[in-house]
Amino acid sequence: MISKIASCIFFTLFISSICRADDGYRLWLKYDEIKDAVIKKQYTGQTRFIALSGSSKTLEAAAGELQIALKGMLGVNVPTVKKPVAGSSGIILEILPASNQRIGDEGYVISRQSGNIHIAGKTDAGILYGTFALLRQMQQNLPLTHISIESSPKIQLRMLNHWDNPEGTIERGYAGSSLWKWYDLPEGVDPRYRDYARANASIGINGTVVNNVNASARFLTAEYLHKVAALANVFRAYGIKTYLSVYFAAPKTLGGLKTSDPLDPQVQAWWNAKVKEIYSIIPDFGGLLVKANSEGEPGPQDYGRTHADGANMLAEALRPYKGVVIWRAFVYKADPNADRFKAAYEEFTPLDGKFEKNVIVQVKNGPIDFQPREPFSPLFGNMPKTPLGMEFQITQEYLGFATHLVYEAPIFKECLDSDTYANGKGSTVAKVVDGSLHQYPITAIAGVANTGSNRNWTGNPMAAANWYAFGRLAWDHTLSAQNIAKEWVKMTLTSEEQSSNRIVNLMLKSREIYVDYNTPLGLSRPWSGVHYAPEPWQNRSSRPDWTALYYHRADSAGIGFNRTITGSDALSQYRPEVRKQWENPETCPLPYLLWFHHVSWDKKLSNGKSLWQELCTRFYTGADSVKWMQNEWSAVKNNMDPEMHADVAARLEKQQREAIWWRDAWVLYLQSLSKQPLPAPFKQPEMTLEELKQSVNVYLMR
Amino acid sequence: MISKIASCIFFTLFISSICRADDGYRLWLKYDEIKDAVIKKQYTGQTRFIALSGSSKTLEAAAGELQIALKGMLGVNVPTVKKPVAGSSGIILEILPASNQRIGDEGYVISRQSGNIHIAGKTDAGILYGTFALLRQMQQNLPLTHISIESSPKIQLRMLNHWDNPEGTIERGYAGSSLWKWYDLPEGVDPRYRDYARANASIGINGTVVNNVNASARFLTAEYLHKVAALANVFRAYGIKTYLSVYFAAPKTLGGLKTSDPLDPQVQAWWNAKVKEIYSIIPDFGGLLVKANSEGEPGPQDYGRTHADGANMLAEALRPYKGVVIWRAFVYKADPNADRFKAAYEEFTPLDGKFEKNVIVQVKNGPIDFQPREPFSPLFGNMPKTPLGMEFQITQEYLGFATHLVYEAPIFKECLDSDTYANGKGSTVAKVVDGSLHQYPITAIAGVANTGSNRNWTGNPMAAANWYAFGRLAWDHTLSAQNIAKEWVKMTLTSEEQSSNRIVNLMLKSREIYVDYNTPLGLSRPWSGVHYAPEPWQNRSSRPDWTALYYHRADSAGIGFNRTITGSDALSQYRPEVRKQWENPETCPLPYLLWFHHVSWDKKLSNGKSLWQELCTRFYTGADSVKWMQNEWSAVKNNMDPEMHADVAARLEKQQREAIWWRDAWVLYLQSLSKQPLPAPFKQPEMTLEELKQSVNVYLMR
Repeated sequence: MISKIASCIFFTLFISSICRADDGYRLWLKYDEIKDAVIKKQYTGQTRFIALSGSSKTLEAAAGELQIALKGMLGVNVPTVKKPVAGSSGIILEILPASNQRIGDEGYVISRQSGNIHIAGKTDAGILYGTFALLRQMQQNLPLTHISIESSPKIQLRMLNHWDNPEGTIERGYAGSSLWKWYDLPEGVDPRYRDYARANASIGINGTVVNNVNASARFLTAEYLHKVAALANVFRAYGIKTYLSVYFAAPKTLGGLKTSDPLDPQVQAWWNAKVKEIYSIIPDFGGLLVKANSEGEPGPQDYGRTHADGANMLAEALRPYKGVVIWRAFVYKADPNADRFKAAYEEFTPLDGKFEKNVIVQVKNGPIDFQPREPFSPLFGNMPKTPLGMEFQITQEYLGFATHLVYEAPIFKECLDSDTYANGKGSTVAKVVDGSLHQYPITAIAGVANTGSNRNWTGNPMAAANWYAFGRLAWDHTLSAQNIAKEWVKMTLTSEEQSSNRIVNLMLKSREIYVDYNTPLGLSRPWSGVHYAPEPWQNRSSRPDWTALYYHRADSAGIGFNRTITGSDALSQYRPEVRKQWENPETCPLPYLLWFHHVSWDKKLSNGKSLWQELCTRFYTGADSVKWMQNEWSAVKNNMDPEMHADVAARLEKQQREAIWWRDAWVLYLQSLSKQPLPAPFKQPEMTLEELKQSVNVYLMR
Repeated sequence: MISKIASCIFFTLFISSICRADDGYRLWLKYDEIKDAVIKKQYTGQTRFIALSGSSKTLEAAAGELQIALKGMLGVNVPTVKKPVAGSSGIILEILPASNQRIGDEGYVISRQSGNIHIAGKTDAGILYGTFALLRQMQQNLPLTHISIESSPKIQLRMLNHWDNPEGTIERGYAGSSLWKWYDLPEGVDPRYRDYARANASIGINGTVVNNVNASARFLTAEYLHKVAALANVFRAYGIKTYLSVYFAAPKTLGGLKTSDPLDPQVQAWWNAKVKEIYSIIPDFGGLLVKANSEGEPGPQDYGRTHADGANMLAEALRPYKGVVIWRAFVYKADPNADRFKAAYEEFTPLDGKFEKNVIVQVKNGPIDFQPREPFSPLFGNMPKTPLGMEFQITQEYLGFATHLVYEAPIFKECLDSDTYANGKGSTVAKVVDGSLHQYPITAIAGVANTGSNRNWTGNPMAAANWYAFGRLAWDHTLSAQNIAKEWVKMTLTSEEQSSNRIVNLMLKSREIYVDYNTPLGLSRPWSGVHYAPEPWQNRSSRPDWTALYYHRADSAGIGFNRTITGSDALSQYRPEVRKQWENPETCPLPYLLWFHHVSWDKKLSNGKSLWQELCTRFYTGADSVKWMQNEWSAVKNNMDPEMHADVAARLEKQQREAIWWRDAWVLYLQSLSKQPLPAPFKQPEMTLEELKQSVNVYLMR
């Protein structure tokens, strides 16, 4: 605490401005003192006690959170009592009978009855979620007098996937090293783990996979299981179950067996024993996440078996403990003639119905890999007999890491709201994932976490909004990107109306701006290994599908990947209604055009411009729009914390520089093929293509 | 701030103890309110103003630090004024004439004159150091009434070496990722950089090498130089110069030249231009640190040139800007028949006098590599015409990483106080390094940093004492390890006398305890690549000198490395007086015995025990002593911050478990050679050698 005050005094001494330094650690659970005296007085009168009859770690967590929050917002130490205090108004945590039909197991009802605020749920977890829902109202200074909220999660398993490695690095992590101090665990339990659990519980996340899907077998050793157990012991009170990613070849590497063949009795016995061991150490363990036969990871196909064979073996081992197998569908073969777009569908649809009941197949939102814009994966709607879980990526692997400001809720919503037409119109991806379309027995949604050891958790303070938005949508996919942004901004950045609206507006536009300068009109993956510096010219790699050329197919004639019947015919993996939207280059919406068509440079588009003109327009408009974002951001400076404002401003400054870099890389490279001048009013980039390539090489240098 | 309070309430709610949660971020600059009312009143009366006539960033930093500290310790906002306030008592920051003979350029004089406290120096930096010296007194609640302190640093360049890589990892770092957020720089400047500079300035460190000696050429790109400049801009006000480690082959890899031969005019021109560029971006740049022809790094020998040729080329480039070259002497060839102990001496002594004036050769304290105990490097005292800088390792690469509690001041002192006899008795290593023995024109001392992104900077809160001790000894090597520990404990952990004495005592004993269970009697390096898990049996590696066997040479006859005339004769690199201490196995002090002698298991030692008995005794005594450390630590629980106490307690618990693991690894392995039973009263380890090897393999598994 003092250190903050200290740096404040520094601040005042050298910059002489008022200091409200916020290092971002508290995320959206800031609980700052409420400025509006009327509301503060009202709240104080409405929250004089916290009554909880039962007692459990989870109820204690709920009551504890209320105490922290009320102390912060109202400056009052509110007592916890066993019974409501007569003649006084307070908060009552209340268990509803299991028979209650209005809400689901994790749902809650918030109501005001005879002067008290009731937070009711069928489970302690439900009450905890209701508690955070109430606090969300208070953090936004909304009246509680007639409060009446009823909500239940639409998806059962709402998880974060951490791509964290045992040595503390994070694959695709841009906010420092892993949160998990494996080295210190199990004896050393960082108090931060509790704050991580609080943040997740506040948005309804109820599961966390603590290690990378490219999994080290170390996590299956007794040594590591005890470390994981120490985390699970912290998470438990917050309704969060712990899961592990597993290395499919562990029976060989760790167990010393001759094979890891899922049909081999010894291998099955090994997994059965290992799972038994896990549950003896972590009784409420959630289950196993598996990346198999994908990007070099071992899997059942190494032994001529199917994904189902592999998943079912693990499902057998987990069933006695009600654990689940989450089997990833992210697969593609290194075949220069194949279309990676089609791979997952081809491998998995034949297996529909062949998976055990406690298996979920986890599918990335798009068919390729978390691009700034992708059509939804054709697996959604095509696996009616197999529970499909959604895998979104919160960490900005393809979205400018922790530098570029990209609010992801629109990406998530775009996919969830897509119509698969599986059972006719309205068969949205969301309805596939929440189980309502195919009556899946289990439902799941996962977000690849963007958290790290940086003090503010996510590197870019604005990236915390993506963690928040993922959780809120995992709970209720009908929420709007705008309302989620409003909540987050009010709780995190500023309660001042005009500034808050400006920031929300900026967030909502940020994704399209990024797409414009990065991959407009359905372009994708202009990268090699480092998914950051522009390399659209990149045409050599250990795998053809790891080059940029593979994806954009640019040549002297035009650009784009023909996925129609005259091309890879990937479109045939979609229902006719979906296909119709995209298969005709004349009518295909521009944002998806080059995903499905190779289009000539001079082709006139629906908006009258030629493809070349439109591409240039997007690149330049996108880069220019970052300047607009900077201006918008400066405009809110006086209504938020200076330290946090300066942090984001610095990132926007870099984003502005790099947006031009990326724009110029694309324009110069494509110009070398299209041989066309830039349309007015755009100015030719200052660098030559060779100079720009050199600048990228320097960037990529190790 | 609130987040801390929040977790406090948690604390009280669940553990119901008084909460003074300290996350360790403030290090030894805590400035907590002074409890003793009398002293507080006294101090308040003595510090009513801060008078500074001149103005500079450094004086502002000094005044700012005083304001922070007085606000914290006394709760008063002390004003800065241009002139002393008549009739009132305050602090006067005062510049002394350059002619002043009493102190050096960075020295200071603190005195009390007519009711005011004068902090005087010949430079702003001197005044800054004096300011921290005064605060050190106040943090220890020492009276200021008759204060009179005069001090000047004995060594000119007092540096930290950060082995930090551009992607944020730290070689041999155990406290999270790099402090430097290269990705965010130069636009994003973490407020933490200022606190890093404050901590260093408070102990007199005036230089920092920001990147790994295994250097990436990236740091020489304009892009990175601007990032480094952003750090230098923060450090400057605190008297800290910035340095870079360079990749010797940069002219080829970065400059595109055909060679990096130091005698090639093009190569020289490239370095001249590059250095010019560096100074155009960082005007007060300190200089270059080079690891050349060492462990696979490129260097002048690749072109048949000498270390002097390489260093002098860079010295030429740096001379116009008064920059220095710091050339590391850490070299050894992969020769199974050679003794690595002798390598640096053999390569460097022939070059004595051949280096340019602005070159410093940086020598590790011991001839091998930062072992828990090493004899001093024979280079000290044998390079009279070449300034030798000292390289200590603060990060605990061979000392239990961030888990084991090892206070390093005794290691540093042991080396500094060693007598080289270069100019007869009293020619200590310290006198070599501070230049007094050979009248070196430049003097330098470096510590390989143990800082990282963890909130508390060093992972193990107790490891901050090693950072502190290094800085204090770099300033004045005559300070005692005990007094430094006392200062640090009082300022960091507790002002309660008895507890503070307990902790100091525990710190002073910690190193011998570690040596006992890790490498007693002069053993070293029982490791392969990972310098943590015990592998005394390790006898295979890509290099013979990267095996454990190479160092301990254990066989059925005995153990130890014969470095006498009948062996590698490394002893002949020392002066006769030094040799005499060590060359006779009968009289060689036990702590050094196996460094110089291969001793038979049954050999009777000076203490009457056989070697085998003494070895077992050390291993078991060492492991048992960790239990004692745990007990001592529990005894101070009520007199310090609970969070910090729990953190260290957890690490001690792990240390206890691992000390037994290391003991047993040694004992079981050596027993397989000595074929002797354990002497009473020691019990045979529970694991077999094979089981223990397996546990190590699991630990090392990736």
